Amino acid sequence: MSLVTISGLLSRLEAGETTATALLSDLQSRITARGTLSPFQRLEWERAFEQADLSDRARRERKPLGPLAGVPMAHKDMFDRKGSTVGFGGHPSARKTASGTALVLERLDAAGAVDFGRLQMSEFAMGPTGQNHHYGMPENPAVPGGVPGGSSSGSGVAVGMGLVPAALGSDTGGSIRVPAACNGVVGFKPSLGLVPLDRAMPLSWTQDTIGPLAASVDCARRVLSVISGGKTRAHGETPRRLRIAFDRGGFVEGISDRMRAALAETRGALAGQGHDLVSLDMGFYADLTEPANVIAIAEAATVHADRLRDCPETYGTQVRARLAQAAGISAQAYLRARQIREIAMARTAEEIFGAADLVILPGLADVAPQAEALVHAEGAEIARMISGMTGFTRPGSILGLPVLSLPVAWTSDGPLSLQIMGPRGSEDLIADLAQTLETSRQPVDAALAEPA
Amino acid sequence: MSLVTISGLLSRLEAGETTATALLSDLQSRITARGTLSPFQRLEWERAFEQADLSDRARRERKPLGPLAGVPMAHKDMFDRKGSTVGFGGHPSARKTASGTALVLERLDAAGAVDFGRLQMSEFAMGPTGQNHHYGMPENPAVPGGVPGGSSSGSGVAVGMGLVPAALGSDTGGSIRVPAACNGVVGFKPSLGLVPLDRAMPLSWTQDTIGPLAASVDCARRVLSVISGGKTRAHGETPRRLRIAFDRGGFVEGISDRMRAALAETRGALAGQGHDLVSLDMGFYADLTEPANVIAIAEAATVHADRLRDCPETYGTQVRARLAQAAGISAQAYLRARQIREIAMARTAEEIFGAADLVILPGLADVAPQAEALVHAEGAEIARMISGMTGFTRPGSILGLPVLSLPVAWTSDGPLSLQIMGPRGSEDLIADLAQTLETSRQPVDAALAEPA
Repeated sequence: MSLVTISGLLSRLEAGETTATALLSDLQSRITARGTLSPFQRLEWERAFEQADLSDRARRERKPLGPLAGVPMAHKDMFDRKGSTVGFGGHPSARKTASGTALVLERLDAAGAVDFGRLQMSEFAMGPTGQNHHYGMPENPAVPGGVPGGSSSGSGVAVGMGLVPAALGSDTGGSIRVPAACNGVVGFKPSLGLVPLDRAMPLSWTQDTIGPLAASVDCARRVLSVISGGKTRAHGETPRRLRIAFDRGGFVEGISDRMRAALAETRGALAGQGHDLVSLDMGFYADLTEPANVIAIAEAATVHADRLRDCPETYGTQVRARLAQAAGISAQAYLRARQIREIAMARTAEEIFGAADLVILPGLADVAPQAEALVHAEGAEIARMISGMTGFTRPGSILGLPVLSLPVAWTSDGPLSLQIMGPRGSEDLIADLAQTLETSRQPVDAALAEPA
Repeated sequence: MSLVTISGLLSRLEAGETTATALLSDLQSRITARGTLSPFQRLEWERAFEQADLSDRARRERKPLGPLAGVPMAHKDMFDRKGSTVGFGGHPSARKTASGTALVLERLDAAGAVDFGRLQMSEFAMGPTGQNHHYGMPENPAVPGGVPGGSSSGSGVAVGMGLVPAALGSDTGGSIRVPAACNGVVGFKPSLGLVPLDRAMPLSWTQDTIGPLAASVDCARRVLSVISGGKTRAHGETPRRLRIAFDRGGFVEGISDRMRAALAETRGALAGQGHDLVSLDMGFYADLTEPANVIAIAEAATVHADRLRDCPETYGTQVRARLAQAAGISAQAYLRARQIREIAMARTAEEIFGAADLVILPGLADVAPQAEALVHAEGAEIARMISGMTGFTRPGSILGLPVLSLPVAWTSDGPLSLQIMGPRGSEDLIADLAQTLETSRQPVDAALAEPA
């Protein structure tokens, strides 16, 4: 599988080897030829060709071009675009025609990106496997039979298939990082508040973030720079000598031997680069899953209160059960979870970022689990499999920290990913370090050049 | 009743007519002579005389003096001072010896104020009448037989008695403004977040504010300037021509005829000063009492969860019932209240402060209610009386806005107060306007000069 990168596309566009319109036509042919809409939810070629044409004309006329001029992108189906349908991965009755455009899309438009469609997602962004009660599950291109991960399932798959160099996702409890890890692509969840949520679907508004799933760290940071309104650097720098922390063992439990090996290999690589390794007890992060869930479910149920009361039958079984469960959460339990968050933030500032600049954590416990295994698992086994997918992403969510998920090793069963987490606002540093680890599998730009 | 002002005290100190030590001795004699500790909860003369002595020496040696050098103050019993007892208006078992000093007290210390004691308050700052299950109710000096108001009951009474020119209180739902209005003094609740809450008792942390109850607007702003760390002006300026809004009637209902007359008189005075009067529909403010309560009770019950579980018998009947009631509030109801707050903030920004610079509201429905009447009232009558005390303060609380409460008329039954509310950060403008309305009863500085 070869991925397509922004820099690769831009150099071909700049060299006159292709045009935005040609790139889009090629995509259209390839997607149509597949005979399935998945991983897309909706394709909007007409408007996209207009955007591509504008971009091509501007380039011919040597007008100033945005940093993503002519780059084709598609996004998770949860961002409003004026006059277009937005569906949130929900029952068809939940669809609406947007009356305005999400600020992140406006920023991508202004940067010249060509937006040609919407990608599959878990129902209302709830669920880490990528299974959707109404629309099924897109196929993981990196792990045969593996789940694509969720909730930004289609975003991970479309990038992993080499169709787009980047796609927007959202991350409330791991919804960017989990599908990125499952599909062997980069996922970048920014600090809470860095990227504006205007006209994006809310889920748990004290944890919601928007960010890219992308073919490379470079692709991810170019997109993040645009959607953050220039608050992060689009291009890498060599990081200074850093203190990089690994968990001593209290938090990182239950990972596979090969994930353990990938962590050890990364330690070695970082030491070889001259960084200082720090071993810290992150055991308290294990206690954050429960409060992160309480906050997420209580807030999500508030968002969905009216719809759940008026038409509960339009929700999938699992999402309905999860939202109904939230009705039993008391204000005190919710506020206690918020207090635990505050305490964990203070401890993180002191104990973790007092001793280290950045933290390395596993992405998943192993490669993406097999969809069949998940279907047939029961009780404790399901819980173990789900916690192997989401157990390591919760700290970044509840603490509002920036985290980048990055594939670092490719086994015969699929990619193994790590997370790099830093203090608020450390996106640039995280990406700089990530680029030094991005060696195992260089994305190449062949996919669009050689139509399937 | 004559009040004592900061400017009056400072000019006597500067002229050498008195000393900080002499002012404190005089206070000690008068308070001791009264034969009751009320409205104080605790007197700390020893440390106060040390502060006074330091201040006097600094003045004699012509060292630089803080803006409150030598001014005696006492405060609501909810601020930590290292090594001193703090009691929160609670059962004696709730008392603790503070291990550090509240930032507001540190700022007052640095400004040269002399802190000689702690004042009565409602139990854990809950309750608008000023009645305390454990310690009773201080006597209202402005309204014979009237309640002092709460929760900063002692602060309102001590200022109203002319003992101190200002005292700190806290305001979560009206706890500065209600006792200020009841006792005919000025109360200044700042914008949420302006004054740091470090080492002050938490109640409802998304609404809690700290501010002064004071003998005059000038006194209040001098203190606010200190405790805000200089974020507000200590001295007044003539306000420019302002657009000043009054409610058209949807919110301001159930007020007495004389309160209505006081509002009309104020309209006339403001028009006479050349301001533009704006009549707005503030009906949506009537719907904020319920969500403000839900937020306050849910957060308070979270603060008190452990204590309420371990020793419920140490709470007064009403406070215990109110906290227990909070256990029934769901996370969704709490979050819905938070959403209503967000919507009301947006409406206020657009509909109110889009059309006006400041808003005038009643303080109470009338003068402070009679304590006896409250004791004997039942059911709907209690609800009516309580809502007459707190019904007009809730918008400022839930919206996090700065509000100053000011007596504008004195009836034979006691003072009538109005509130001036503005957008976040408009403290200076509010105080500037308040000073132009402060004519009905000039506080004079005789109280300390003529010992009782």
